[in-house]
Amino acid sequence: MTSSQFTSLAFGIGTQNKHSEWLEVFYPTPVYQPSKDLVDAIKSVTGYQSGNEAIELDAAMLTELGDAISDDIQSTLVKKLAKSSQPTVLMMMATDSEIASIPEAYLKLHLLSYRYVKPNEQNLVGIFSKLPNVAWTSDGAIDPAELEEAILKARIEGRHIEVASVDKFPKLTNYVLPTGVRIAHTARVRLGAYLGEGTTVMHEGFVNFNAGSIGPNMIEGRVSQGVLMREGSDLGGGASTMGTLSGGGEIVLTIGKDCLIGANAGVGIPLGDRCTIEAGTYITAGTLVQVFDENKKFIKLVKARELAGQSDMLFIRHSQTGAIECRTNQKAITLNDALHDHN
Amino acid sequence: MTSSQFTSLAFGIGTQNKHSEWLEVFYPTPVYQPSKDLVDAIKSVTGYQSGNEAIELDAAMLTELGDAISDDIQSTLVKKLAKSSQPTVLMMMATDSEIASIPEAYLKLHLLSYRYVKPNEQNLVGIFSKLPNVAWTSDGAIDPAELEEAILKARIEGRHIEVASVDKFPKLTNYVLPTGVRIAHTARVRLGAYLGEGTTVMHEGFVNFNAGSIGPNMIEGRVSQGVLMREGSDLGGGASTMGTLSGGGEIVLTIGKDCLIGANAGVGIPLGDRCTIEAGTYITAGTLVQVFDENKKFIKLVKARELAGQSDMLFIRHSQTGAIECRTNQKAITLNDALHDHN
Amino acid sequence: MTSSQFTSLAFGIGTQNKHSEWLEVFYPTPVYQPSKDLVDAIKSVTGYQSGNEAIELDAAMLTELGDAISDDIQSTLVKKLAKSSQPTVLMMMATDSEIASIPEAYLKLHLLSYRYVKPNEQNLVGIFSKLPNVAWTSDGAIDPAELEEAILKARIEGRHIEVASVDKFPKLTNYVLPTGVRIAHTARVRLGAYLGEGTTVMHEGFVNFNAGSIGPNMIEGRVSQGVLMREGSDLGGGASTMGTLSGGGEIVLTIGKDCLIGANAGVGIPLGDRCTIEAGTYITAGTLVQVFDENKKFIKLVKARELAGQSDMLFIRHSQTGAIECRTNQKAITLNDALHDHN
Repeated sequence: MTSSQFTSLAFGIGTQNKHSEWLEVFYPTPVYQPSKDLVDAIKSVTGYQSGNEAIELDAAMLTELGDAISDDIQSTLVKKLAKSSQPTVLMMMATDSEIASIPEAYLKLHLLSYRYVKPNEQNLVGIFSKLPNVAWTSDGAIDPAELEEAILKARIEGRHIEVASVDKFPKLTNYVLPTGVRIAHTARVRLGAYLGEGTTVMHEGFVNFNAGSIGPNMIEGRVSQGVLMREGSDLGGGASTMGTLSGGGEIVLTIGKDCLIGANAGVGIPLGDRCTIEAGTYITAGTLVQVFDENKKFIKLVKARELAGQSDMLFIRHSQTGAIECRTNQKAITLNDALHDHN
Repeated sequence: MTSSQFTSLAFGIGTQNKHSEWLEVFYPTPVYQPSKDLVDAIKSVTGYQSGNEAIELDAAMLTELGDAISDDIQSTLVKKLAKSSQPTVLMMMATDSEIASIPEAYLKLHLLSYRYVKPNEQNLVGIFSKLPNVAWTSDGAIDPAELEEAILKARIEGRHIEVASVDKFPKLTNYVLPTGVRIAHTARVRLGAYLGEGTTVMHEGFVNFNAGSIGPNMIEGRVSQGVLMREGSDLGGGASTMGTLSGGGEIVLTIGKDCLIGANAGVGIPLGDRCTIEAGTYITAGTLVQVFDENKKFIKLVKARELAGQSDMLFIRHSQTGAIECRTNQKAITLNDALHDHN
Repeated sequence: MTSSQFTSLAFGIGTQNKHSEWLEVFYPTPVYQPSKDLVDAIKSVTGYQSGNEAIELDAAMLTELGDAISDDIQSTLVKKLAKSSQPTVLMMMATDSEIASIPEAYLKLHLLSYRYVKPNEQNLVGIFSKLPNVAWTSDGAIDPAELEEAILKARIEGRHIEVASVDKFPKLTNYVLPTGVRIAHTARVRLGAYLGEGTTVMHEGFVNFNAGSIGPNMIEGRVSQGVLMREGSDLGGGASTMGTLSGGGEIVLTIGKDCLIGANAGVGIPLGDRCTIEAGTYITAGTLVQVFDENKKFIKLVKARELAGQSDMLFIRHSQTGAIECRTNQKAITLNDALHDHN
């Protein structure tokens, strides 16, 4: 094994329930494709040998690691973690294989949001079965079975516990804040979202894990699991994308460059570049579409899935005949820069 | 009166404003249809005689109640409440009558979320007039008239107060977490929502009070007041249901079993079982619909309200003629189990 | 200069990053068109002479100001601020000119939300370039560049930091709570929203800065930047309005009195009074519309923008022909009072 083949490792700090089971792990600066030196230093201290393994660490081992590691960032992190009042863990992920533990699931989600891997590039099999359901509160992660007691205890003491979410996935921004992005309402972007530089997610925007945008992009609609938007494309307010978990079936949905999906519209087929879907129009894979050429001459009637991945398409529902049409997008959609700077 | 007729009682802990008026009450384990023993024990200590009454309790009375009550759960609760720094209350609700107080309104909302009663089974008359508007903050409930001073005081001390909502209804999860549910974004589910076992509410989902799902269900759209979804049905992203407060008028809207309301669709009539509404299609009660039989033969043109409650309907807006059609749902809609496990 | 021409002044308390740069400012009771006395008192203490200037204040100067100012509200505020552990500032805004500083931008947003000025009445040029991107957290405003360290430090200490938003604009309710409004989910209303008395914003509602409602209004859809709703109008669940930043181009969009925009509908033209748009129907400026008179007689086919600002229009997409029609709104839309009281 050469060091370049080692997938990732990361030092984390997390939360466990009263049975000492992990609820979640935060990795401040995960390492993607670590150097052989770093892996060897860790081996020498922890006894780790190979494979994918989550190793719980105590203060003594963290102090030892802090001295053994030459990488400044990781060494500094490890020394800080040595003072932690919370459980700490080292995730050694030699290969990108089926997810076998909670610390491993969290590392894969971090790698997406750190932009080390793009959506659909990792093996995420097992993520739903491994991740526990968690109550995400103002006191941090709490096991749902322990929530009512925690709320009552806090009430009696005159404190308030706010429960923001009860879900397998936490919100992105409590873990990773990618550079050059704005997220107007963070509750709607899960850890594991891939948000490229220059992405703005407005209040109505949503981005699932293993989904996202290359950037720059304006996201005011819902980016479903598996969906990727390429640079310069806008997803309008309330617009829907059909992911593989959301009715889209087997098709992996990509939105090409400089596309514009209008407000309250929807799309169930991959789009090439410079495509537009009119506000309020929903195109599913099975929608019958009248195709017109650049001279506005009718060519054929097809199901939308036959147009998958093509560029320069303009989809509308004709305001007089009610028919779904695919016209040639005459004017290249010039990205509304004001949308990105001014929203 | 036999004990089986007594509707409910509950010990609560809540918040009052500076005028000692209730803002909200949390009932950790309300009792539905309490035993005669429990009611009698309470009568002996509190002097309660009959009817619906909210009785404020002090530590002495709570201690006395803790000894008098034989029910373990309630006795333990009462002993904990005796140490509370916050106001405590006992709500005795002998009958399901018009709401007369804030503690009574909160108990009825708890009964829904504890699944003791289903939507539209309780008398909720008076709930809007009785419930005060409250600022729901990271410091707990605050009277809106007292908010600005609280924020300024906190700022001067270097603390932050987060105001999550200004509304008559609080969010569900700060009060009740029903078993077997996920709620990705809790701000959109009010206390008083009925969420059956196996319900997942995604980020775009919304459930009002006195509304909900039998479970299992996937809710990615808006379940309006009064609306009930039966088992196995999915409400797609951004889909709208017309409740009695939301333009639906007098009709109480039920979505039958194994239905699928597509993303960005809408429905204003009750549906039977195995109905589908295509993504992006809005069916109001007044929509003219072409009805086809299972051989795709046109039968009649009717207003949608005439189809209310029927099963095996498939609603689409034809992609070429623009006409709203109701076809026979040929393939039974098999619930996408992946949606429930994997979202 | 007469005092009536002085635009506004305000004492604020805010947050700075580690470089002593402002992140945000809270003005508890800004003064619109202050008296000459107040301006003169401030001049005498601070040395302020003219123009728009943000003056940082220390405890000594605040104490002096508390004595010099005769206005009770401002004097009391200033004395409280003298004890602040956080940075304080005085914003003197003599004229409504291009925004030159962060304290000035925040004052203009406050003036909108305090209802001193309506949307589109202020010069907001420069607001996007002046406002910094901020991580809005349970510990208050944090510079995004300082966030990861803050989260790690809190974790190590066993505390949780919740990051609610990463955006240039904060939420309204952490700054201003206008009288007579309910906002079911505050994350979707930015500071700078103008919410008139009697406005209810439901969970699906959204109001941008420099946008809003005269009141009473029911807002369950998205009020884009620049859009103003007049009294008695309802915006249905998920309904979209095209603001100047959201695809609407140059047109400033106003919704007249007693209008009803249906759920999941959309509008890209200004509407007069008593207009209705059917649920699920999207009207953009370029939509071809068949216009009918009050006798249901076809008159003409026009682009929707030619109907801009007219009253008594009813827009539907015909459920059988698929054509977008504009009919005369026969029955005046009586506002559903229940919507306002009971939601």
